[in-house]
Amino acid sequence: MLEQAIQHAREGRDQAEKDLFDLLAIPSVSALPEHRADCRRAAEWLVQRLRAIGMEVELVDVHEAGHPVVSAQWLGRPGAPTLAIYGHYDVQPPDPLDEWASPPFEPAVRDGFVYARGSDDNKGQHLAGVKAAEHWFRSGGPPVNLRFLIEGEEEISGRSLPDFLHQNAGRLQSDYVFIADGGFTAPGLPNVLTGLRGLLYTEIEVTGARVDLHSGIFGGVAPNPFNSLAHVIAGLKGRDGRITIPGFYDPVVPPADSELESWRSLPINEEEQKQAMGVSELDGEAEFSPVERKWARPTLDVHGVIGGFTGEGSKTVIPARARAKVSMRLVPDQDPEAVFASLQRFAPTLATRGTKVTVRKLNVADPVRTGTDHPGVEAAARAFEAAYGARPVLVREGGSIPVAIDFRNALGAHMIVTGFGLPGDALHSPNERYSLDQYHRGTEMVIRLMHELAGARAD
Amino acid sequence: MLEQAIQHAREGRDQAEKDLFDLLAIPSVSALPEHRADCRRAAEWLVQRLRAIGMEVELVDVHEAGHPVVSAQWLGRPGAPTLAIYGHYDVQPPDPLDEWASPPFEPAVRDGFVYARGSDDNKGQHLAGVKAAEHWFRSGGPPVNLRFLIEGEEEISGRSLPDFLHQNAGRLQSDYVFIADGGFTAPGLPNVLTGLRGLLYTEIEVTGARVDLHSGIFGGVAPNPFNSLAHVIAGLKGRDGRITIPGFYDPVVPPADSELESWRSLPINEEEQKQAMGVSELDGEAEFSPVERKWARPTLDVHGVIGGFTGEGSKTVIPARARAKVSMRLVPDQDPEAVFASLQRFAPTLATRGTKVTVRKLNVADPVRTGTDHPGVEAAARAFEAAYGARPVLVREGGSIPVAIDFRNALGAHMIVTGFGLPGDALHSPNERYSLDQYHRGTEMVIRLMHELAGARAD
Repeated sequence: MLEQAIQHAREGRDQAEKDLFDLLAIPSVSALPEHRADCRRAAEWLVQRLRAIGMEVELVDVHEAGHPVVSAQWLGRPGAPTLAIYGHYDVQPPDPLDEWASPPFEPAVRDGFVYARGSDDNKGQHLAGVKAAEHWFRSGGPPVNLRFLIEGEEEISGRSLPDFLHQNAGRLQSDYVFIADGGFTAPGLPNVLTGLRGLLYTEIEVTGARVDLHSGIFGGVAPNPFNSLAHVIAGLKGRDGRITIPGFYDPVVPPADSELESWRSLPINEEEQKQAMGVSELDGEAEFSPVERKWARPTLDVHGVIGGFTGEGSKTVIPARARAKVSMRLVPDQDPEAVFASLQRFAPTLATRGTKVTVRKLNVADPVRTGTDHPGVEAAARAFEAAYGARPVLVREGGSIPVAIDFRNALGAHMIVTGFGLPGDALHSPNERYSLDQYHRGTEMVIRLMHELAGARAD
Repeated sequence: MLEQAIQHAREGRDQAEKDLFDLLAIPSVSALPEHRADCRRAAEWLVQRLRAIGMEVELVDVHEAGHPVVSAQWLGRPGAPTLAIYGHYDVQPPDPLDEWASPPFEPAVRDGFVYARGSDDNKGQHLAGVKAAEHWFRSGGPPVNLRFLIEGEEEISGRSLPDFLHQNAGRLQSDYVFIADGGFTAPGLPNVLTGLRGLLYTEIEVTGARVDLHSGIFGGVAPNPFNSLAHVIAGLKGRDGRITIPGFYDPVVPPADSELESWRSLPINEEEQKQAMGVSELDGEAEFSPVERKWARPTLDVHGVIGGFTGEGSKTVIPARARAKVSMRLVPDQDPEAVFASLQRFAPTLATRGTKVTVRKLNVADPVRTGTDHPGVEAAARAFEAAYGARPVLVREGGSIPVAIDFRNALGAHMIVTGFGLPGDALHSPNERYSLDQYHRGTEMVIRLMHELAGARAD
């Protein structure tokens, strides 16, 4: 059956490209109201395809003002594991249009790449999953139970899919969730994500006198909220990159040996990183590698400071208050709420005399460990090896992928987070592209993943 | 002759009040274009009065767009010292009008105070000087040579008088400059100013990467200009209020014993200061008294921070640059240029790895010692004692008075900086007022000052 599905996939490459180009021709820009109907058209295109291959499909309008969720299922393998495949049919706005070599919604093939908005992010990736299912259905049926959960609000951080997952958690239970929305570490080098950093985003406010004061008259006795804020911020993270909030590092779980080994093998060059950023030195904890600092170490960054005099020239005011936007990237198993509580107690102790510090929580996201040792990781590794001739490296992501947290929390599924994009695919930029070879091999990878997961379950 | 002049002053109080009310009725608001003609009218009123009493007067349009300078001289006492009397005929805008108990340009007397915009600041103060000269002219002539230099741009920081002083420095040389534009420390307690703090106003810019970066992806290795700026600012001044710029305190001259003695006698209560500012503690160098910190110690204050994300919510950007407005109040004999040079060398050493620091100079003003021991101070003290029955305390000013620096630099004169206002006179606010008793005694004080300066010269 596996061989037959692979065979269908290889014979059906022309049709698979035609399908991809059809979907890419729909300008489903979720951020722009004038493309609202196009978003629905893309969703309906997927409904029709999924129904045609044999899935049971719903088009769900979760929020009236949002874009619909495509939810499909096939539970024809009782006793076999259930795999949910995630995707998003919405795309970024294409502007600036005049920088595109060919129009963003008229897919054009050059040198083995299809150029179109949404080709890599994310139509070409979830369509590989749809095609994989299709080839299995033509080869005796998939060896696992299947779900597709495809949203239209990824690019606008919409709540439709998260709310749908939480509201229907019971009936959507799955063993694995497959998220292909990223890319290879380098050409020929696939990866599987093993962790995501979390976030604690705060606003730190420091107040001094009741009103703004003149620095000539009061300078020397008046508490200055900005000077105090500088002491708070400098006190929270030393020049060595070490964060001083009590208990901050206690729950940090070091990366697994398999992860560290993977990271050492990565073709990541510190010199190139510095050049790409345009800096003479990298910042942070020198005792950890740059990769470890970005993926497995927490950080603390100031994003902006509000208040006081910001005009031209030289106004000599001692402002009554200052506010800073300060966030921390957190790693497994730090708890954003516990960090916030400790920060709230600690920050006021860093202030200068006569000033008061208040810390407010604006946003949190849990750090996520997708796991290095659940059966899905090895299944994906074997599927990648067969499809691309290379075992994936284990990587992490420094930012959070909110939908990953929702899948984990609502469905309790093992996560397989990976992707078929290539460096240079220009996501969110003009001339976004996607390798057709990656697309076809990606389809084979998902076909093999289904096979491996069925076997994994059998083990 | 002195007795005669005093006698004339006492007999002429009704006329002196009439004169004051005439001048106060002219709405010479320098900031408002619709009062441009009124400013000239006030200047011409002064020209006419000064000419009538016997002075040689010029009305000088230094800058076409500005307001004229009234420059008067009488050099009829060859060999005697020359006293220049400063004043400004322009006033602050009167709004909000509905908070005035009587119209701002219709002088009204209540409980011994005349209520009108400009009554204290500064018409009632320089007019005391004009009246003093008038009474001397009616009593055999002033015992010293006299100048009046009265400007119309004090409230708008105009350049007319400073430029006039520098352009005519040779012919305006004077031995003393008398500036009455302040007020008593408390009712019955006059003061003479012995020093002014100077200013070095800078902008500190910190740059990191070439462009803004995402903190999820780059947090942990990307230099953050805001975190670095916090280390720079916190590093420039410790929690103890001590500034760390190398050599910063070396030129600081401690206050004279006579000043410290005066300050200890001042009716200034730390508890009241805290309540007035609405703070639980005063900031600054605990080993110096609050008065000394405000008048005789340098400070460093941040006025505002520019750059980064300052909107609502939680954008996770690592900004490419951050700028802070940072000023230092300087004291005699600190040199703003030398401090700037040291700061430029020192600030970059406080930055975090991978960030660059640039310090720009926006504004400077020299600190000024008006002197505690030149003959004018003792002359003023004796004049105050005779006119008000109290010797003045020696005080300083925490802010700079730009015109004082221009007088010192252009004319090289000893300065007598004082004032006849009272606490509660509501300068720049609705219901500005001025005590008529202070006005009349002030006139006698200036009459006696001229006498004392003539004697001082003879010593």
